[in-house]
Amino acid sequence: MMDVSDAVATRALARFGAGQPAREIPEATRSVFQLSLQDWFAVAIAGAEEPVSRRVRAMVREEGGAPQASVVHGPRLPARAAALANGTISHALDYDDTHFDHIGHPSVAVIPAALAMAQRAGVSGRAFQDAALIGMEASIAVGVWLGRAHYQIGFHQTATAGAFGAAIAAGRLLRFDTEQMARTIGLVSTRASGLKSQFGTMGKPYNAGIAASNGVEAALLVSHGLQSKPRGLEGMQGFGATHHGDLDTSGLTQLGAVWRLPRVQHKFHACCHGLHAALEAFAALPRVAPDQIASLDVRVHPRWLGVCDKPQPMTGLELKFSFAGVLAMAARGISTSRLESYGMDVAQDPHVIGFGQRVHVAGDESLGETQARLALRTTDGDVHEAFGNLDTPMTLAQRTRRVLSKSSELVGQDTALTLRRRILRYASPSELAQAFEPPETEPRASS
Amino acid sequence: MMDVSDAVATRALARFGAGQPAREIPEATRSVFQLSLQDWFAVAIAGAEEPVSRRVRAMVREEGGAPQASVVHGPRLPARAAALANGTISHALDYDDTHFDHIGHPSVAVIPAALAMAQRAGVSGRAFQDAALIGMEASIAVGVWLGRAHYQIGFHQTATAGAFGAAIAAGRLLRFDTEQMARTIGLVSTRASGLKSQFGTMGKPYNAGIAASNGVEAALLVSHGLQSKPRGLEGMQGFGATHHGDLDTSGLTQLGAVWRLPRVQHKFHACCHGLHAALEAFAALPRVAPDQIASLDVRVHPRWLGVCDKPQPMTGLELKFSFAGVLAMAARGISTSRLESYGMDVAQDPHVIGFGQRVHVAGDESLGETQARLALRTTDGDVHEAFGNLDTPMTLAQRTRRVLSKSSELVGQDTALTLRRRILRYASPSELAQAFEPPETEPRASS
Repeated sequence: MMDVSDAVATRALARFGAGQPAREIPEATRSVFQLSLQDWFAVAIAGAEEPVSRRVRAMVREEGGAPQASVVHGPRLPARAAALANGTISHALDYDDTHFDHIGHPSVAVIPAALAMAQRAGVSGRAFQDAALIGMEASIAVGVWLGRAHYQIGFHQTATAGAFGAAIAAGRLLRFDTEQMARTIGLVSTRASGLKSQFGTMGKPYNAGIAASNGVEAALLVSHGLQSKPRGLEGMQGFGATHHGDLDTSGLTQLGAVWRLPRVQHKFHACCHGLHAALEAFAALPRVAPDQIASLDVRVHPRWLGVCDKPQPMTGLELKFSFAGVLAMAARGISTSRLESYGMDVAQDPHVIGFGQRVHVAGDESLGETQARLALRTTDGDVHEAFGNLDTPMTLAQRTRRVLSKSSELVGQDTALTLRRRILRYASPSELAQAFEPPETEPRASS
Repeated sequence: MMDVSDAVATRALARFGAGQPAREIPEATRSVFQLSLQDWFAVAIAGAEEPVSRRVRAMVREEGGAPQASVVHGPRLPARAAALANGTISHALDYDDTHFDHIGHPSVAVIPAALAMAQRAGVSGRAFQDAALIGMEASIAVGVWLGRAHYQIGFHQTATAGAFGAAIAAGRLLRFDTEQMARTIGLVSTRASGLKSQFGTMGKPYNAGIAASNGVEAALLVSHGLQSKPRGLEGMQGFGATHHGDLDTSGLTQLGAVWRLPRVQHKFHACCHGLHAALEAFAALPRVAPDQIASLDVRVHPRWLGVCDKPQPMTGLELKFSFAGVLAMAARGISTSRLESYGMDVAQDPHVIGFGQRVHVAGDESLGETQARLALRTTDGDVHEAFGNLDTPMTLAQRTRRVLSKSSELVGQDTALTLRRRILRYASPSELAQAFEPPETEPRASS
């Protein structure tokens, strides 16, 4: 009935989604996935009362419906609505993980879809984690296949590739065979969307919600028997041709053999990604008391100039886009991973302002976008240099420590450690989602 | 706060949607719109038990939720779900109206969105009709702006331009000002999708449901305060640049001055559109008894050869793609507008088969795609010729008669005339939607 034998991309994706044995997932991939899951819960809970989160939640709350799946700080709702809300909420802070091959944020598109469908189906914690992991790996592969051309013209891979990953995760939880998975890919190819033109607005986190919801919808419709053209990705009028895809199928054909998920990057500073390499380099410098630092020279790829080199940040938001500001925070021991650090009080602290005036930023074409070089000159005339590179691999132990530390700063140590224990022992989806319940005290005031 | 002063397309669309005075809608536009509304109800009700209709309805029925809006043969559900279901259901038969400037089907994307939002808001019948009409006109203008390039690469204007029209209609029912309307356009620009690769599958009617639902969702989110980049259509990363748009703004800047809706085409035969001009030409021939017809030569644009020139149709479905079949039906007085005519009994009727063998089809490059030439030779040797052209304007009276006749064949004369009376007296949206209730007897068996 269905023939996708010559549709290399669709076939590879459908086979991986339906057929990848969970027991053959490498342990290292599983461990990194579990950190992404921890990180996703933390950023979702921390973003629960952001303005965009309240607004999307208000829409689905008003709609109501069958209590299938949990919403962060909300009621249980149908899976499709929960995916829309939680996708948006978890990307509200833009503090979730990033994958540079994918050119997007894999967790916020896939995990909300997987969690909602897992709760709806009442499956085990292990089935939920396997489906989310496989969906994330699939979304990264689709992101590679769409490539740089797709991104440059203006599509937001988080939303587009993310919808495919969400669909794979949802289909897996419905125990789809390869044919059903291919039909799901067909439906999501006509449904997926999301533009970068929304960056800088609430439309950006909404794009993550769109992805999660589109994946759930496509899979649910196939479970109800909807037929589609399974050849969704390739060929004339396929998703790739219409959406400016690079169409390098290698990422898809390697699925199950090469695992890209372990190279996902977690954000450890609640500020513009362009500042992170400099903060990593600063952490590698010897400790010098702030008043003994005469100057701090920063060299970064020139693309970050004009993006996040605000020399005299005046507000919390401006701090997030300022080398001077975040390096002054780091020098003075103010956490750059806590959301609350980025406030007016810090921006206008005379010590922070004074230190910031000693930070000098310059572009350097020889550096990559994920790199930074720092030169610190002490009042004694000593010079210390350091290099920061976000691509430098971390050991799993290092990464675990940092993800847990970030989670603790975002949601408190108790919640962070409870989540960690539940993730490691494969607690049921609904037990994990208990972390979505709002605190009994008033939620943090939102901007 | 919002500046779209140099965004010609977005500004024109937002202003028309929010600001077009209903009293300045030309009477001729209103009259044709009311025929499209009649036709939309008829095809939606007639398609209610198609397989795709049952399946999409099953999904939203299972979700449930606030009883805001009516679903064809279904319960009342939230507006967003009702729009998804009714958009799909009304396009299930592919028997709804078409606009050749738009390159799509305006009613099935816009009317379901307008009806659901009108029921949710409890507005008057006139407010509903005004919003649906303005949304349809807007979708046609966006279709013109996206143009042939968008369609050729593989996008389905019904779904893409349709989502913008649905959003305008929904925003109008929420009484949006120009700024809110521009934000809605921004959100729908990141949400709209739909590919022609799904043609020939249930994915095609689903695309209409997508459009209606996307429009409702974008407007609802703006009503809940969601902010977006309002410059949704134009510029780098805008909907046009990313979606291969022609970007001819004239259709948009003429909104309110030029009304394209009156040139919408209603389908009067329940078969492939490529057969319609020949059927119109046949109706213009003098009446000759079938057994006195020696031969019937048909000349059409060559693109229809291979699409709908099946010489010996064996099934009801094949009849829908056969000049020989439908002309035999017409010659023998079998209605080509009734769905039930296209059955095995008719395909295998010896009189139909015998007549079909006397029909000869040839391509003719000098004809347009909407044209056909017929030459009928009688057994006495007389020759009669006729020309059919779907673009030939009909008087309003002719068109009204034909739309009512088609509706009566689809849903029965009582329902058709009740709908007509209610539309003309601007009955409330929920009174109109009473026609969605399933008949008390068992619904028509579906394929």
